[in-house]
Amino acid sequence: MNTSNRIIYALNAVEWKTFFPGAMREEAIGLSDEYLIVNPEEMSVAQWEATLASFQPNVIVAAWKCHAIPAHFDVLTGGKLKYVCYLAGSIRKLVTESILEKGLIVSNWGNVISRVVAECGLMLAIAALRKTAYWQLGMHLEGEWKTPETVSGSLFERRVGIHGFGAISQALAILLKPFDVKIEAYSPSVPDGLLEEFDVKRSYTLEALFSENDVIFELAALTPQNEGIVTEALLRSIPVGGAFINIGRGAVVDEAALARVASEGQIQVGLDVYGIEPLPKDSPFRGMKNIVLLPHLGGPTTDRRQDSGRLALSNLKRYGAGETLEATVSAQVYARST
Amino acid sequence: MNTSNRIIYALNAVEWKTFFPGAMREEAIGLSDEYLIVNPEEMSVAQWEATLASFQPNVIVAAWKCHAIPAHFDVLTGGKLKYVCYLAGSIRKLVTESILEKGLIVSNWGNVISRVVAECGLMLAIAALRKTAYWQLGMHLEGEWKTPETVSGSLFERRVGIHGFGAISQALAILLKPFDVKIEAYSPSVPDGLLEEFDVKRSYTLEALFSENDVIFELAALTPQNEGIVTEALLRSIPVGGAFINIGRGAVVDEAALARVASEGQIQVGLDVYGIEPLPKDSPFRGMKNIVLLPHLGGPTTDRRQDSGRLALSNLKRYGAGETLEATVSAQVYARST
Repeated sequence: MNTSNRIIYALNAVEWKTFFPGAMREEAIGLSDEYLIVNPEEMSVAQWEATLASFQPNVIVAAWKCHAIPAHFDVLTGGKLKYVCYLAGSIRKLVTESILEKGLIVSNWGNVISRVVAECGLMLAIAALRKTAYWQLGMHLEGEWKTPETVSGSLFERRVGIHGFGAISQALAILLKPFDVKIEAYSPSVPDGLLEEFDVKRSYTLEALFSENDVIFELAALTPQNEGIVTEALLRSIPVGGAFINIGRGAVVDEAALARVASEGQIQVGLDVYGIEPLPKDSPFRGMKNIVLLPHLGGPTTDRRQDSGRLALSNLKRYGAGETLEATVSAQVYARST
Repeated sequence: MNTSNRIIYALNAVEWKTFFPGAMREEAIGLSDEYLIVNPEEMSVAQWEATLASFQPNVIVAAWKCHAIPAHFDVLTGGKLKYVCYLAGSIRKLVTESILEKGLIVSNWGNVISRVVAECGLMLAIAALRKTAYWQLGMHLEGEWKTPETVSGSLFERRVGIHGFGAISQALAILLKPFDVKIEAYSPSVPDGLLEEFDVKRSYTLEALFSENDVIFELAALTPQNEGIVTEALLRSIPVGGAFINIGRGAVVDEAALARVASEGQIQVGLDVYGIEPLPKDSPFRGMKNIVLLPHLGGPTTDRRQDSGRLALSNLKRYGAGETLEATVSAQVYARST
């Protein structure tokens, strides 16, 4: 099947530049038979809906700044709109579950960001073991230097526990390989074969995962069952000198408990995600020198948005050729996502 | 040849615990035929020399706290002392060049620390690209969070330049492998075969190395020719958005120039080493939010001192069996070291 591609590109200047840098912009536009470029920031919702009605696209390429797809998108576009190629991650603000149930195909950046989030986790782990937050505050502001009592740790040959074993965990296992670590993962839903592929041992309980490993990476999905599943008892069971790194979802952790345990100074912590974002100004995490804090920069970094752009180009080609798309979000996945 | 090993272990409690943790202590002692354990911190120099004269060791196992080997060690020990197994790095305070010329064998931790220094460099690079110093200061002290203007970078697919290609650079190349980087190295003395082994391209000038790569790792040896060889012009040629990471020797860099270039904010910087250590309290690096600062924690971390202990056990066994030792420091290497 060859579909005539009438594409609306609804991106602002920064989105164009970062998702489709250099020649990728022309390549993206070249994939349409007819196209319209709009800057959603210069448009009201009414103008957006009027544009959909007048251009009647069958494809929309969108990112963070795009207005939502209206519930009556099918009426507006005369039944033409079939596919929204979303360049970012969460599509919660873009479409409702019922829009997906009507058959609109939506893809997002899928797993292309996984390796960059894993990179952030690796950095946070090494940084935490070397007490990098402490040294930034002490060296920049208090004229500090190491003393004979200074203790530092390495990731080499450590026991590593990963909570969850999705795409980011798998990318992390690859980055961890040269560190000669022993990796265990707790993820009841993941098949044995996948763990074996990454040379990862199954941990059968969260209790074992936390108490028998030195460095814990939190990467469990935020499902209703997982909310707050990382309890004070689990955090307290991490061996002294160990580290807890969260690059998944903040709300999986009892954060008040994490603040209490961290305040005792027996473990190092690295956090990129929080139950409430932006992290409240009065969060107890702020000011704790054994916590490396990042403002949800996991992935993708600005320079790697092009990976999502490349996936989009591939998907737009596939769509034009009537082939199956990658990284589409099903109504089922949507319902589970947050 | 089997030599009767009369060993003095001149270590304090922390040195025992970190270099020979667990069963390694017994193993170390078990390698002697007769032994004496002394805590150098509880001993004057006169007592130390008297101990050498009375016990007449042929081997000394020593670390940071040990008093120097006296120039007349051969007279004191009746010509018996042949080998000092030093557990740390620089032997400058332990022996003079003329002691080595007299034929005393001294080994140190050699290359067992290389991977841990490389790990520190990898962390500093990822941390610098994500502006981790900025975020530690901002998030811990000023209640900050990212904004739509926040820019962050990843190491994936970057062009990496390494100045120097010794053991640490080689260990770094292994850690960099999963990041799909292109590595170039500037090291006139290194043979082509070694670069090929690590899939590293030769850079023929420092100018090309600095201007044609995004992330520069400084790992050149501090020889008289290399002092200050990283000039302002080189630092200024690093592409905007790039990073300069020094885990080698501070004095290889014109640090005043580095402070000027860094202050302009076009590059990110990660520093573990400085021309003057401890880093002076009024160093211009302190307070610069685009510089991740560490107080020379490269390697080994406390938990990896055992790697040096393991090398020492191997060397003590080899010595006992009359075999060639590893990581010995020749008078030539000594003369070049700082």
